[in-house]
Amino acid sequence: MQLSPSLTTLIEALRCQPGIGPKSAQRIAFHLLERDRKGGTQLGNALIKAMTAIGHCQSCRTFAEQPQCEICLSPKRQDSGILCVVESPTDLLAIEQTGQYKGLYFVLMGHLSPIDGIGPSEIGLDILESKLQQGGINEVILATNPTVEGETTAHYIAQLCYRYKVDASRIAHGIPVGGELDLLDGMTLMHAFSGRRVVSQN
Amino acid sequence: MQLSPSLTTLIEALRCQPGIGPKSAQRIAFHLLERDRKGGTQLGNALIKAMTAIGHCQSCRTFAEQPQCEICLSPKRQDSGILCVVESPTDLLAIEQTGQYKGLYFVLMGHLSPIDGIGPSEIGLDILESKLQQGGINEVILATNPTVEGETTAHYIAQLCYRYKVDASRIAHGIPVGGELDLLDGMTLMHAFSGRRVVSQN
Repeated sequence: MQLSPSLTTLIEALRCQPGIGPKSAQRIAFHLLERDRKGGTQLGNALIKAMTAIGHCQSCRTFAEQPQCEICLSPKRQDSGILCVVESPTDLLAIEQTGQYKGLYFVLMGHLSPIDGIGPSEIGLDILESKLQQGGINEVILATNPTVEGETTAHYIAQLCYRYKVDASRIAHGIPVGGELDLLDGMTLMHAFSGRRVVSQN
Repeated sequence: MQLSPSLTTLIEALRCQPGIGPKSAQRIAFHLLERDRKGGTQLGNALIKAMTAIGHCQSCRTFAEQPQCEICLSPKRQDSGILCVVESPTDLLAIEQTGQYKGLYFVLMGHLSPIDGIGPSEIGLDILESKLQQGGINEVILATNPTVEGETTAHYIAQLCYRYKVDASRIAHGIPVGGELDLLDGMTLMHAFSGRRVVSQN
């Protein structure tokens, strides 16, 4: 027996979500049809709306429905003179949730990866360069991921900052708060040692 | 910082899927926006289509886009004179996937549960009764789940069959193929003993 065409299409379409395999997709489809048709329709409308309405902020490249995002439009943030470079909007969100950072952002939407054909212009470094050129930025905080690609990207942007005489700093790598020394990998421990800070000096 | 309204709505709507919490919903939303907008739009359309186009088969109550499903329309199955009663369309699908059963189905879309206000008419037993009354069915196979509610439902339908002089049988409960005796629960073992079959007799 074949499932009805709309149901087959729905199960297949549900699999575009990360972490959803064929069994989960079938379970979700039957759940929505049996118990939550209203929710299913709302999800459908929300998806179509979001996929068309959400674009990128012209200034920082994060997701936004307006030409510029809320953060870039804030005069307080513009006056801070600090720009934090992150790889994705989720990184931006994580930093925002700490509530401590009050500067601007620049979202690369990826990282340099020449092997995949991702060069400086694909991650918007031309836009970042013109920002540095314009002035008004005193410090660039490099908050890319501590992976090979993330480090390469950070290094590339640091050179760009040097060219335009803007300070560049890299977020600290070390022991996470609450972490235990004996459970940490060697690389992190090494970073924690090389990045040590003086607490008292004679 | 607040996420854009469409994005907030999308993340909230994604949570109608079973097994998707706030973190997974956020991950799915960002994944679709960053990497698979086409897939997201297709999923949106598939959901809206499925939620409106898929109804219930008038004859067996399973999901169908036509007034009657493929199985109910098959003359071979109609001639079989066997009707298998299951709780949900997924149970029907599991039985169909064995490829062995060639009769008709009746999908209850639930089970008797007076405490939740689910009585005989809520699970379509009035439709089943008129089917039994019409004739043409020689045997009803009760394939509800081996839970308290499933057993109660099976018992109720068995009485209905008795009234209309139709044979009723319950699927066997016992040791699953490949299962090991020492790992089974006592209830299943008890069922396996009480349901034993003669293999040689003097």
